[in-house]
Amino acid sequence: MNHYRVLIDANDEKGLVHKVSSIFYKYDLNILSNSEFVDKESNKFFMRSVVEGAVNKKELIDAIESVLPEKSSVKVIEPKKKNIIIMATKELHALGDILIRHEAGELEANILAVVSNYDKLESLVTKFGIPYVSVSHDGLTREAHEQEIIDCIHSYEDIDYIVLAKYMRILTPTFVETFKDKIINIHHSFLPAFIGANPYKQAYERGVKIIGATAHFVNNNLDEGPIIAQEVIHVSHVDSWRDMQRSGRDVEKVVLSRALKLALEDRIFVYENKTVIF
Amino acid sequence: MNHYRVLIDANDEKGLVHKVSSIFYKYDLNILSNSEFVDKESNKFFMRSVVEGAVNKKELIDAIESVLPEKSSVKVIEPKKKNIIIMATKELHALGDILIRHEAGELEANILAVVSNYDKLESLVTKFGIPYVSVSHDGLTREAHEQEIIDCIHSYEDIDYIVLAKYMRILTPTFVETFKDKIINIHHSFLPAFIGANPYKQAYERGVKIIGATAHFVNNNLDEGPIIAQEVIHVSHVDSWRDMQRSGRDVEKVVLSRALKLALEDRIFVYENKTVIF
Amino acid sequence: MNHYRVLIDANDEKGLVHKVSSIFYKYDLNILSNSEFVDKESNKFFMRSVVEGAVNKKELIDAIESVLPEKSSVKVIEPKKKNIIIMATKELHALGDILIRHEAGELEANILAVVSNYDKLESLVTKFGIPYVSVSHDGLTREAHEQEIIDCIHSYEDIDYIVLAKYMRILTPTFVETFKDKIINIHHSFLPAFIGANPYKQAYERGVKIIGATAHFVNNNLDEGPIIAQEVIHVSHVDSWRDMQRSGRDVEKVVLSRALKLALEDRIFVYENKTVIF
Amino acid sequence: MNHYRVLIDANDEKGLVHKVSSIFYKYDLNILSNSEFVDKESNKFFMRSVVEGAVNKKELIDAIESVLPEKSSVKVIEPKKKNIIIMATKELHALGDILIRHEAGELEANILAVVSNYDKLESLVTKFGIPYVSVSHDGLTREAHEQEIIDCIHSYEDIDYIVLAKYMRILTPTFVETFKDKIINIHHSFLPAFIGANPYKQAYERGVKIIGATAHFVNNNLDEGPIIAQEVIHVSHVDSWRDMQRSGRDVEKVVLSRALKLALEDRIFVYENKTVIF
Repeated sequence: MNHYRVLIDANDEKGLVHKVSSIFYKYDLNILSNSEFVDKESNKFFMRSVVEGAVNKKELIDAIESVLPEKSSVKVIEPKKKNIIIMATKELHALGDILIRHEAGELEANILAVVSNYDKLESLVTKFGIPYVSVSHDGLTREAHEQEIIDCIHSYEDIDYIVLAKYMRILTPTFVETFKDKIINIHHSFLPAFIGANPYKQAYERGVKIIGATAHFVNNNLDEGPIIAQEVIHVSHVDSWRDMQRSGRDVEKVVLSRALKLALEDRIFVYENKTVIF
Repeated sequence: MNHYRVLIDANDEKGLVHKVSSIFYKYDLNILSNSEFVDKESNKFFMRSVVEGAVNKKELIDAIESVLPEKSSVKVIEPKKKNIIIMATKELHALGDILIRHEAGELEANILAVVSNYDKLESLVTKFGIPYVSVSHDGLTREAHEQEIIDCIHSYEDIDYIVLAKYMRILTPTFVETFKDKIINIHHSFLPAFIGANPYKQAYERGVKIIGATAHFVNNNLDEGPIIAQEVIHVSHVDSWRDMQRSGRDVEKVVLSRALKLALEDRIFVYENKTVIF
Repeated sequence: MNHYRVLIDANDEKGLVHKVSSIFYKYDLNILSNSEFVDKESNKFFMRSVVEGAVNKKELIDAIESVLPEKSSVKVIEPKKKNIIIMATKELHALGDILIRHEAGELEANILAVVSNYDKLESLVTKFGIPYVSVSHDGLTREAHEQEIIDCIHSYEDIDYIVLAKYMRILTPTFVETFKDKIINIHHSFLPAFIGANPYKQAYERGVKIIGATAHFVNNNLDEGPIIAQEVIHVSHVDSWRDMQRSGRDVEKVVLSRALKLALEDRIFVYENKTVIF
Repeated sequence: MNHYRVLIDANDEKGLVHKVSSIFYKYDLNILSNSEFVDKESNKFFMRSVVEGAVNKKELIDAIESVLPEKSSVKVIEPKKKNIIIMATKELHALGDILIRHEAGELEANILAVVSNYDKLESLVTKFGIPYVSVSHDGLTREAHEQEIIDCIHSYEDIDYIVLAKYMRILTPTFVETFKDKIINIHHSFLPAFIGANPYKQAYERGVKIIGATAHFVNNNLDEGPIIAQEVIHVSHVDSWRDMQRSGRDVEKVVLSRALKLALEDRIFVYENKTVIF
């Protein structure tokens, strides 16, 4: 008996749950959990089921597609470890949290490598037996530096996600396009407040009473990709912007790890720059 | 076109979603929202669907029951205002919050009356044109006092819920039995911590850093009925127990109103002293 | 024995706590609570003490000023009810929460009147025996309408605060200047995200996972005055922007009431468009 | 110029702030931050000041003591790394979080060793160059096992704190007495709810909607020592007790690290089984 994650994204019409569950019934699949959502405004139907049984994946996909409207998307995924590359710069809190969770067996992931523009984190990463690739940007144009990183990532096969664990360089559209829908970033503010550089300083200067962090997929508009997870903490006048930065790190690592977990468990649908999360 | 809330509670077996959704499809009912949950340990299946269409309720119930295992429960409810009685003693925050929400049209409820063992809240309640019944316990045994209240409540018809908005008298098993599964209470602690009298004082003395409130159905074991909603706030050493009581009130009113809203929208299933909330 | 709130705002220099507490000691005042804060960047010192004793206020102020650097500000306030005017439009949740707290005796305030550009809330407000002044903007220029409201407010004496409990008209600089540092607003977003109109719709379209509300003093830059309090709640893809608006109301009322309470208890210092809150 | 943390614990009487700040002034010490608290019920005064200057510590202590009532406690501490021993069993999340923070330089601590009753965590700990001492309880009485651990800890000098990062054995009064006021534990529930074994299972069975974790000093009454920090998360009917355990781990590690940081920064006073935290 296997488990399968069935992900459906279709235009809504009457009877979809009935039709899909009929297929599950026909193939003798037991539903372990099931979530549906209809966005009335855009008339889109989303469904994620975890089913148990024994079935040919291709056959199941075809059977489900046959009962759905045109232009639907159906995925059937057998849970297994996904391949991820982590990119970081100098800060170790978000990276460290992922490494520890990986070590604890909490993540359905193989960390193929950590890529950084500095060598500061090498000693931490190699402790865990994970390859560390330092690609310095010294003396390189942004494009040349990125190309080196792209080449490095391409030297690994079947990358599922690239996790930016406080990678502090702006990515070009070329990079984003190359790894479309695969890049997860942690932004150190409660987006869309404080887009851009040094959000903690901005937050301090504005005198806010709450700061936060946002994990999102990266698209070509900086800090504007689909949001996966957000979390906040209270601050007060006693906090300097460096204090906010310090306590913000705890939020950043929690939010990034939460978003990564959702991605690894195939719980995220993206549409219209938004996410549906089951 | 009408809306119907369909609530199903059954022993789990393969194909239930398929079977129920087939009935919806057959009766030309459009699913507006749908939630299912299977408790693996007790092998129980719960489903709440909101469907749109035109159907004979009795016929729909029969059709659904015909595809479910024995001993299942099926309810089909057309959304309409439920009848509630509020019981209170002297504090007005929780009661006041319900009155304001009622006035704002937020609650699917008719407040038939507010019953109290004091007359302190009469001036507030009657402002809103709601009957206020003061049943003093002076000189009465607990049983005699409760019987007066039971008689008072029975003078109203079709009571759906009795809301204890800080009613500070212990109810006897007779009362609880009389209004079985209909009594919602707010307890001023994060249950099961600080069961019993003066939980804020207990919390203060224990030196906790968080206090809370719990809305629950009332059964015969005091403070041990099925929990509907809980919320907490942080406190610190500067808070005396009276400070905790003051800030606790804000949590109490939020939690009670949230629980009442869930009940009025038929979102709560109760089993094994726990709740499933969709 | 009286209580006095002593509020000091001064340029920082060594020994201020010592000097001020010497004065308290000299005048035989017992310190009940005491908070200080130094903003290193701007070299500003803030102190709020609650002291107990019997003293001539003017004499105490002079004594404290004599030990402080030039250009310091010293206030000595005897706790008493402050006079407030509430302005609202059509929504009753934030207004209602204040009315209930007022009724419960939670607020150190006299509500002199509720002023609105509609008559929708009249029936609620007059239930509580509070004057309701409806100043319709129909057929009036913004300036003429505001002048009517200013005249109305000026018909009351000694106004301490004007509370905008979801007053949905933009105020002109004239109005803001007339009641400088006295206007508290609730903005229905987690500022500075979603400045301007319909923030819930903006939040929905951006696909955020958290929404919030911000209470702030009003200055001439719309939605940019000093922030007093903020709070947030989690939302998800299932929430339409109307759902966000509905659940946002609970946050709005909590935040506005919290800010008002801080103001009434003289706990807020404003400087450089930020607040220090003790 | 040095920094000093001055911690005062005294019976309250009029003028204490004045008297202490006079001493600071006399010794030309600049107050960087200052917190006081008076517990009216027990008439206790607590003060924590961070001051800057150059002073003989012994002399400063004597000077402050000379102006305080009898039986006062005064500590003057120069910030430096404290020595800690971590005890763990098999789970690595709480331990891992401390190791990463230590690696990031966030903690004012030297981790002298990790002591465990299993060898499961050895590979993680030694990655960080920290000694790992495995003291198996196999074939030993509780007393004999503990004595081995006590001997092990005593082989290190100047231990400031012993951190129980999910050490799953009950400690005897002998152990607690040996390291009085030095043992910080993380309990995996929102104490005082669910004292004792398997709190997540207890929480699941009670059907709570919120679970939490509590960091506390250990005294002889199991799970009843003074609470330092607590945090909670929301759960629902979909969470099995193993799910609660999994998500509870994130709370546990946050709370324990927060408590440890407070201890390392000398921010905690203990009295009457409660804590004052500045």
